[in-house]
Amino acid sequence: GETVRATLFPGDGIGPEIAESVKQLATFQQQIVLSSLHVSEFFAGMESYNTDIQAKVFNVAGVPIEWEEHYVGTEVDPRTESFLTWESLESVRKNKVGLKGPMATPIGKGHRSLNLTLRKELGLYANVRPCNSLPGYKTRYDDVNLVTIRENTEGEYSGLEHQVVRGVVESLKIITRQASLRVAEYAFHYAKANGRERVSAIHKANIMRKTDGLFLKCCREVAEKYPEIQYEEVIIDNCCMTLVKNPGLFDVLVMPNLYGDIISDLCAGLIGGLGLTPSCNIGEGGICLAEAVHGSAPDIAGKNLSNPTALMLSAVMMLRHLQFNDKADRIHNAILQTIAEGKYRTADLGGKASTSEFTNAVCDHI
Amino acid sequence: GETVRATLFPGDGIGPEIAESVKQLATFQQQIVLSSLHVSEFFAGMESYNTDIQAKVFNVAGVPIEWEEHYVGTEVDPRTESFLTWESLESVRKNKVGLKGPMATPIGKGHRSLNLTLRKELGLYANVRPCNSLPGYKTRYDDVNLVTIRENTEGEYSGLEHQVVRGVVESLKIITRQASLRVAEYAFHYAKANGRERVSAIHKANIMRKTDGLFLKCCREVAEKYPEIQYEEVIIDNCCMTLVKNPGLFDVLVMPNLYGDIISDLCAGLIGGLGLTPSCNIGEGGICLAEAVHGSAPDIAGKNLSNPTALMLSAVMMLRHLQFNDKADRIHNAILQTIAEGKYRTADLGGKASTSEFTNAVCDHI
Ligand SMILES: CC(C)[C@H](C(=O)O)[C@@H](O)C(=O)O
Ligand SMILES: CC(C)[C@H](C(=O)O)[C@@H](O)C(=O)O
Repeated sequence: GETVRATLFPGDGIGPEIAESVKQLATFQQQIVLSSLHVSEFFAGMESYNTDIQAKVFNVAGVPIEWEEHYVGTEVDPRTESFLTWESLESVRKNKVGLKGPMATPIGKGHRSLNLTLRKELGLYANVRPCNSLPGYKTRYDDVNLVTIRENTEGEYSGLEHQVVRGVVESLKIITRQASLRVAEYAFHYAKANGRERVSAIHKANIMRKTDGLFLKCCREVAEKYPEIQYEEVIIDNCCMTLVKNPGLFDVLVMPNLYGDIISDLCAGLIGGLGLTPSCNIGEGGICLAEAVHGSAPDIAGKNLSNPTALMLSAVMMLRHLQFNDKADRIHNAILQTIAEGKYRTADLGGKASTSEFTNAVCDHI
Repeated sequence: GETVRATLFPGDGIGPEIAESVKQLATFQQQIVLSSLHVSEFFAGMESYNTDIQAKVFNVAGVPIEWEEHYVGTEVDPRTESFLTWESLESVRKNKVGLKGPMATPIGKGHRSLNLTLRKELGLYANVRPCNSLPGYKTRYDDVNLVTIRENTEGEYSGLEHQVVRGVVESLKIITRQASLRVAEYAFHYAKANGRERVSAIHKANIMRKTDGLFLKCCREVAEKYPEIQYEEVIIDNCCMTLVKNPGLFDVLVMPNLYGDIISDLCAGLIGGLGLTPSCNIGEGGICLAEAVHGSAPDIAGKNLSNPTALMLSAVMMLRHLQFNDKADRIHNAILQTIAEGKYRTADLGGKASTSEFTNAVCDHI
């Protein structure tokens, strides 16, 4: 078959090593297409990068993916606060699919987070996070099976803020009909395509009547076009209470930016945390940029201790987007089995396995 | 000893019957001081009001409280959308202490919620919600012991919203130095007075640098004055994830309005829901208005089926505020024991007891 090119941004901290794990599972050929700014150039000689792992590049699942690797991040170039090239963006725009690892946001440097820049530059309008209890990995919940779909471009993230007078500041939350319709469309489309039954729009329109009111209005308009999908509206405070009491009541949730930020992390907590939660961003022109949403964990970077599960599961989302459903299922099941068996778990899951031991175990299950 | 007058707003729906339960526990004398707008006048003949229960007014705990009862609500007067008199407000201003039941907010009538009006008129700047696992009432969590303190007057609740152009609306989030300092002061004061060790300020200052940034700046200023209390800052998404994974990590949380709305309900969910969670509002001039934050449950109103626990526990907060600590402890323990024993639990807790059976059981434990 044909090969598909996908962009890979390994990112900062543990990013490079978990990206290696993914490449080990799903890469077409030994030869990674290097961009002009290949990660290893930057990391050469840096202690935090484990070159042993990097060398291991083969294709277990037989996925016809060629990774086009670019460095985007904040830790490698001391001359700039963050590093993002035009080529990196073009790579995603051209390939239409990509995978990104964590990018550190240095605190207090006053620059815009790279995550936000990518969302903006690539028009990533919907962030999709399936959240499922992992069989065999015990948390307080065993019945989580929901998907959060977050509007990813506006709302409380407008960046519009100012001081009115000394001691009085304001931030603008912007809601547009266009962005609300777009994310609502995506949510219903997703629900239908994935055999989901219900979409819940999350809001606080009893207080923010105009902004959240417009969001709801758009959701209702779209809901009309999908009579086969149930539609309900849930106030955010009530939603969070219900999520911790009985998450099984929810199916697909769609919401404005900040609520999505909050609720998607809450949901991740229900199943064990961000280390286990995949995510993907849907962007203009059909872009799909899958992403591990956890941090870059600089304290354990390069020590072969990190958990590549979230990035692996995100890669699985990317494969499904590409309609490589069989391969996606095989890799997905292998990850779930490895975790369920419990023999090879990384430290964050209470185990003793290294990144490479876990990765090898997943490969063995494929 | 002297008697203390406290205002009582039974509210709508189940409000009157759960208010009766509280009066049964904690009232100085048979003779309730009637305001010109006593509840029973309105409810006379209305099916939703159980006059049998209302008759039972005596004093089990020996608390020297005289209730001054006013009707504030939305369901009794068909001529107006909501009903709130000047006398009702004056009663709280004069007594400085009060207790309120739920007030229904008719959906879509476009009027401002009575809850918000009370917050505004009485300058209720801090909403305090202790959240503790109830011994013997099993949820997924048994280690919850935290307090949320919510800024209650500004932020996303400014009511300032408008359409910029067709299809583009904005809401203003307002943060002031004054309100932020005030709630931060209250949080640290509360922590110290209640033997708490740590205050966590919850924010999203990585995105809303100016508004949440100002809120944090104020918290830091106050924290300096309380070197004996630990201080930390936690981003709201991470906070929600940690709350569902390990709520035992938190102690006192202080936050802007909307985050408080969300997180306080999330925390209530951890211990079983709003039916079990007390709350009190601290207002200008030393006002303390305790409040059950659950809904008015019109479907079960007047059927002697409602759970008065949240209103009872709120009354306990009011008693503590009045320094009636012994009486507060006695009532508090009686409530906890009754629930722990499990013989008399209302339907929402999976039991079969009526409101009055549960109330009598609590009285027996005093
Ligand atoms: C890092 C931060 C800017 C980001 C956000 O708030 O969106 C993160 O929390 C996320 O959810 O991707
Ligand atoms: C009813 C509603 C206006 C209110 C709020 O949003 O503050 C409620 O959720 C609360 O927490 O008291």
